[in-house]
Amino acid sequence: MHSKKRIEILLEAPAQKRLTDLLDRLDVTGYTVLPVIGGRGHHGVWSRDGLPSAAGAMVSVAIIVAEEKLDQVLEPVFELVRRHIGIVTISDVAVIRGDRF
Amino acid sequence: MHSKKRIEILLEAPAQKRLTDLLDRLDVTGYTVLPVIGGRGHHGVWSRDGLPSAAGAMVSVAIIVAEEKLDQVLEPVFELVRRHIGIVTISDVAVIRGDRF
Amino acid sequence: MHSKKRIEILLEAPAQKRLTDLLDRLDVTGYTVLPVIGGRGHHGVWSRDGLPSAAGAMVSVAIIVAEEKLDQVLEPVFELVRRHIGIVTISDVAVIRGDRF
Repeated sequence: MHSKKRIEILLEAPAQKRLTDLLDRLDVTGYTVLPVIGGRGHHGVWSRDGLPSAAGAMVSVAIIVAEEKLDQVLEPVFELVRRHIGIVTISDVAVIRGDRF
Repeated sequence: MHSKKRIEILLEAPAQKRLTDLLDRLDVTGYTVLPVIGGRGHHGVWSRDGLPSAAGAMVSVAIIVAEEKLDQVLEPVFELVRRHIGIVTISDVAVIRGDRF
Repeated sequence: MHSKKRIEILLEAPAQKRLTDLLDRLDVTGYTVLPVIGGRGHHGVWSRDGLPSAAGAMVSVAIIVAEEKLDQVLEPVFELVRRHIGIVTISDVAVIRGDRF
């Protein structure tokens, strides 16, 4: 088991590609995208129901990085997120990899 | 980065509005709702596939609160959840906010 | 509140039943399945969009176990996951149960 940091980025769906392109450049070799069906923030309540398109929808992108790599990933990720609606959370995880998805 | 508590409430979908109304009253200004596609608990196995409606479906509602606010949020949330099928988990997170979703 | 371990298993959707059957045999009485809409790993980028079927899709299965039961659950779960595309992460959570879903 390896102690790592899990970074979860809640972000407007249209900005997802910009984020994953950034992760590429940062050599973050894996990420997972979860759908979000609703929420509330400083921009008010929203729900995926009734949204005509992905615009306005949110996604949650999770990545796992080594502790010593945390700052060098966090800084550019936060730079990107702060220009959008989003929130970044960091937590501790231990990781076991199978076929290293 | 700010140390916070992440409360995740797994709950029957029909009770979601009751929960978010409660969060309003508790001044919890943000939450995120994730879909759940299946699970097993004391009420047996269930799956979203084949459910005719939201009745019986579950959602996962995540909120982030300051540590000193944890108890005052947890108690009424748990009061609500215990009248439904649900489970409440609490974990430590650090938070960076962009446009403070 | 009880200190527990949360095990999250990101796994190919077609292997989900094999995993939940294993959890049955291990007496893990509850689990939650979340949809995953995309990601990247050692097998390249993938997205649920455009997938003709569940083959190739991923799901996230979360279980919560007592700390003293962690190893006895992790070992067989990891044995299963390593034969598939997947990743297992472990984190600390506190749990409050309502109707013990």
